[in-house]
Amino acid sequence: MKSRAAVAWEAGKPLTIEEVDVEGPKQGEVLVRIVATGVCHTDAFTLSGADPEGVFPAILGHEGGGVVEEIGRGVTSVAVGDHVIPLYTAECGVCKFCLSGKTNLCQAIRVTQGQGVMPDFTSRFSLNGKPIYHFSGTSTFSEYTVMPEIAVAKINKAAPLDKVCLLGCGITTGIGAVLNTAKVEPGSTVAIFGLGGVGLSVIQGAVLAKASRIIVVDINEDKFEMAKMLGATDFINPKNYDDPVQDVIVDLTDGGVDYSFEAIGRTETMRSALECCHKGWGESTIIGVAGSGQEICTRPFQLVTGRVWRGSAFGGVKGRTQLPGYVDRYLKGEIKVDEMITHTMGLEDINRAFDLMHSGESIRSVILY
Amino acid sequence: MKSRAAVAWEAGKPLTIEEVDVEGPKQGEVLVRIVATGVCHTDAFTLSGADPEGVFPAILGHEGGGVVEEIGRGVTSVAVGDHVIPLYTAECGVCKFCLSGKTNLCQAIRVTQGQGVMPDFTSRFSLNGKPIYHFSGTSTFSEYTVMPEIAVAKINKAAPLDKVCLLGCGITTGIGAVLNTAKVEPGSTVAIFGLGGVGLSVIQGAVLAKASRIIVVDINEDKFEMAKMLGATDFINPKNYDDPVQDVIVDLTDGGVDYSFEAIGRTETMRSALECCHKGWGESTIIGVAGSGQEICTRPFQLVTGRVWRGSAFGGVKGRTQLPGYVDRYLKGEIKVDEMITHTMGLEDINRAFDLMHSGESIRSVILY
Repeated sequence: MKSRAAVAWEAGKPLTIEEVDVEGPKQGEVLVRIVATGVCHTDAFTLSGADPEGVFPAILGHEGGGVVEEIGRGVTSVAVGDHVIPLYTAECGVCKFCLSGKTNLCQAIRVTQGQGVMPDFTSRFSLNGKPIYHFSGTSTFSEYTVMPEIAVAKINKAAPLDKVCLLGCGITTGIGAVLNTAKVEPGSTVAIFGLGGVGLSVIQGAVLAKASRIIVVDINEDKFEMAKMLGATDFINPKNYDDPVQDVIVDLTDGGVDYSFEAIGRTETMRSALECCHKGWGESTIIGVAGSGQEICTRPFQLVTGRVWRGSAFGGVKGRTQLPGYVDRYLKGEIKVDEMITHTMGLEDINRAFDLMHSGESIRSVILY
Repeated sequence: MKSRAAVAWEAGKPLTIEEVDVEGPKQGEVLVRIVATGVCHTDAFTLSGADPEGVFPAILGHEGGGVVEEIGRGVTSVAVGDHVIPLYTAECGVCKFCLSGKTNLCQAIRVTQGQGVMPDFTSRFSLNGKPIYHFSGTSTFSEYTVMPEIAVAKINKAAPLDKVCLLGCGITTGIGAVLNTAKVEPGSTVAIFGLGGVGLSVIQGAVLAKASRIIVVDINEDKFEMAKMLGATDFINPKNYDDPVQDVIVDLTDGGVDYSFEAIGRTETMRSALECCHKGWGESTIIGVAGSGQEICTRPFQLVTGRVWRGSAFGGVKGRTQLPGYVDRYLKGEIKVDEMITHTMGLEDINRAFDLMHSGESIRSVILY
């Protein structure tokens, strides 16, 4: 079938809108009509050419919401008409990782996903007979896209897809890092580095966890208003201080915070986030994705004296078993999504969404088909 | 009163045996007659001059067992005649750290301890009227030594002090890192870097935790026999492989170990220990003390994909409430101490104990008074 799609032909170039060919779902796969998709920094990261796994030409996009249009042989867990959120972190339920009870990082389709193809090592997308690669196993920048059954989460049909599509990545990543990965306790103090869509969502997570103090750090003070609306209590622009920001936070909190989160992707702020934690028990969670080959460093004394350094991917959330609950919490008003959407536009304007993101003027643009 | 003591006059020089003057215990302090003391790498570290907190002249030693001889005003938790193990990590029970329930790093006397003095900022040791500094708040290389009440653990009198003195540092550090800090679950796989007294004790901890596989790493294969006796199952000399040792361990374990421990103090092996952990859940605990100013590094991807980096001091063990239980476990035969003692000698031979340690020929020398 034909599908409107935004194709990334090569690194660093604008996307072009094409009528691509989409092959129907094979065994264990589903065809989904994407209703809406967010545009996330990870799409921009891959488009920039910095992603070592990036292959071109490809159809990017991984923050979508859609409706199942067709199912392949053997598919039993979703049916035509179901509303789903595509999962760049699948959940097969039977691999060593899924069965461990300790991680959401299902590895069942990780290898082919990283190569831009379906589990049978081929692509469902083509143009003029030449294959176009998938991205993150989701490719939500195509109105019709194909995913393995284990890479879609069936959600409540009452949820507006043009909103909850954002739960497919950034918002869930931020909230989950607090609730699933760090497991912040009521009364804790929290510091958050970076106020993009993920960092703002970490604020939401900290509020849900009943943190007593939520300190946010960003060099762009324009972001503090939104942070305050979401529940942040203290606002730090590192440029206003001579001391390193970790020292400022340690002073402000009588020894450091109980939990910190890095949602930027800079190795320097990852170090600051660790070192602003309280001696004896402070835990720092890295969420941001650093550039290829970059390294984090600290003195081991920081850890020997009780700090813990960890990381989080997709907020530690298992897509099929836990993400539907996030959608339900949105419907109950516990998770804010609408407030994060700063722009809405059609697929033909998708390059503008990237421009807005780069300029810092967008938290999230949502693309409607 | 007079006391035989080994005095460290300056960095890098042998100790000399002196008859020093010991002032009686002040308020909240106790005078302890040391019956036996281990000689630990941390003593050698400070003696070398590499310890930024090292002050001279000082009486080193922190792995002791003794008998309370006199108590100062206000002391209520121990009495004359009680058997005690001095604690370089005190436990006041009332500071923010003790009350947190999350750490053993009581800070009540940390500042003065680091300066080589008692909480009133003076020393109880002198020679010819000139003060000699304390070390780690314990100074067990003196037959008589003074400590704050909160820095001694009262133990079962049935325990031989010339054995359980070693529970004052190395053995407890290793076992506690497994049981208290990492909280290794039954069936876990474990890797241990370094087979000194601490690393060997990590094996003991892993056995007590019912680990299924205990992989030990050392470049000195002579240490493997003792490791095997204690319960290690796999033995790796990194020099026998072309690949980095973390890759060797990942291959050996189908993806990495559940828990790893670094008991050497080298930042390179700290990195290896982290990176030999299993994606999704592997946790690495740093026990070794690195040289001043040295830094650990890794790619943040290691943490974002689920590994956790932490550290442990004195095994996360609270000295007054938990260490007596370690002594009891020794008496029940669950914790091996006698096997760790490779040499026993009098105080006059203490420089030989340091030489044996540097040559790698000693796990632990015990000094008897």
